[in-house]
Amino acid sequence: MKRTAFFISDGTGITAETLGQSLLSQFENVQFSKLLRPYVDTVEKARDMVQQINAAAERDGVRPIIFDTVVNSDIREVLAESNGYTLDIFATFLAPLEQELGHGSSYSVGKSHSIQHNGHYKDRIDAVHYAMDNDDGARTHHYKDADIILIGVSRCGKTPTCLYMALQYGIRAANYPLTEDDMERLQLPASLRPFKDKLFGLTIEPDRLASIRNERRPNSRYASFSQCEFEVREVENLFRKENISFINSTHFSVEEISAKILVEKGIERRLK
Amino acid sequence: MKRTAFFISDGTGITAETLGQSLLSQFENVQFSKLLRPYVDTVEKARDMVQQINAAAERDGVRPIIFDTVVNSDIREVLAESNGYTLDIFATFLAPLEQELGHGSSYSVGKSHSIQHNGHYKDRIDAVHYAMDNDDGARTHHYKDADIILIGVSRCGKTPTCLYMALQYGIRAANYPLTEDDMERLQLPASLRPFKDKLFGLTIEPDRLASIRNERRPNSRYASFSQCEFEVREVENLFRKENISFINSTHFSVEEISAKILVEKGIERRLK
Repeated sequence: MKRTAFFISDGTGITAETLGQSLLSQFENVQFSKLLRPYVDTVEKARDMVQQINAAAERDGVRPIIFDTVVNSDIREVLAESNGYTLDIFATFLAPLEQELGHGSSYSVGKSHSIQHNGHYKDRIDAVHYAMDNDDGARTHHYKDADIILIGVSRCGKTPTCLYMALQYGIRAANYPLTEDDMERLQLPASLRPFKDKLFGLTIEPDRLASIRNERRPNSRYASFSQCEFEVREVENLFRKENISFINSTHFSVEEISAKILVEKGIERRLK
Repeated sequence: MKRTAFFISDGTGITAETLGQSLLSQFENVQFSKLLRPYVDTVEKARDMVQQINAAAERDGVRPIIFDTVVNSDIREVLAESNGYTLDIFATFLAPLEQELGHGSSYSVGKSHSIQHNGHYKDRIDAVHYAMDNDDGARTHHYKDADIILIGVSRCGKTPTCLYMALQYGIRAANYPLTEDDMERLQLPASLRPFKDKLFGLTIEPDRLASIRNERRPNSRYASFSQCEFEVREVENLFRKENISFINSTHFSVEEISAKILVEKGIERRLK
């Protein structure tokens, strides 16, 4: 039996979702059906939410869990009448923070994900375009502007990692695929040599790589296990020979890979 | 005078950062210096954190605010000795959730951003590659696989929005730039017609568009205010004539634009 969880906000809902997901992931023995409900920003929408919550309570036979970052008090009053069990995120933490900081909070909606509150918003968007333009070794003459250059075999996870670092943290991340040519000579391409301090390696287990490549080019030499094993072994040798830090992406998400890389390289994220 | 805030975790730190940013954004009269400290996962690293916290306290003349999602109890004990003011996110919410759910929590590290906990991780990565391959009208023969197709003038914010929806929610988002050709005839390109229910428009204020384009191609006709004004007016007319929903991206972040689009189109996000 599933239990329904709602992430409700009068803004984007990102905070309610992130905290809610994090807390629910600690309960491995409960199955949740999770629903994100952003922009519940009128009394009318709140009444509709109450109906959805009550319907879920009836369907599940148990009250839904509500993670709530609604700021507006009229809307909160309506939501409070539902049959859900509410964890009120802002109410819980804002009062102690107000006391500690000696200031009242503004209780305004959706500030943390707005452009206005986000001093580095333009950096993030510029970094996304940088990552797109410098993806997959497409250009190498902008590497002087890179914060980091990811290298590794084709399809080991470089592109999503670069885009995540760009979007979340405004980090200018380029990536360069090491091809068979680079491997046979077991040396770094000339275009990368001047930027050795920016390089970071990604590697991956050969069977996982073969499975990813098979989706793109089924039954090709490129996707064969023996080819994948050869490339991964050669590239890992190159990383070791050149003393380039690297991590194995096989069992990690882009969030984890990015956080590990930035800790290892000592790159401070551009926080809002 | 700035007050230091630390987001500390033995995992990626994403939950601590997201909630911390959200709460701090409610205090407009306090200036914060924010530091993300992921993977504080040994007692030794925790001791180093205590030194950083205490140094900040001395420098600022006031104790730092600590947003903490550390799970390991040995590490928590060390951190508790610092001179910071700690908001203990997991401790605050896990006990009431355990009672409500009738289950103990697993108190395990970094689950919510791991692949294992994330049933839709592969969808997200596939969606990133889909967005890359179908960016900027590069291909139009995969639109049948799209969840959404963003349309608008060049440089109005389509690409970062598509990538955000892909990375965060596994949504397959293509985008197509409307060019002067489409405008002069004031009609939808033939490649888009069969997918009208998937289309969503982005628009932007002409002076903002001119400023963005000027960074790419300074003093070009493409970047001139008159050209930008013409294109925006024509495209908005097209949206209205074809009855295509659209929003103005000028004052919104990719987080806000994405959330608004998904609410409007009634697309349920693929939550972990």
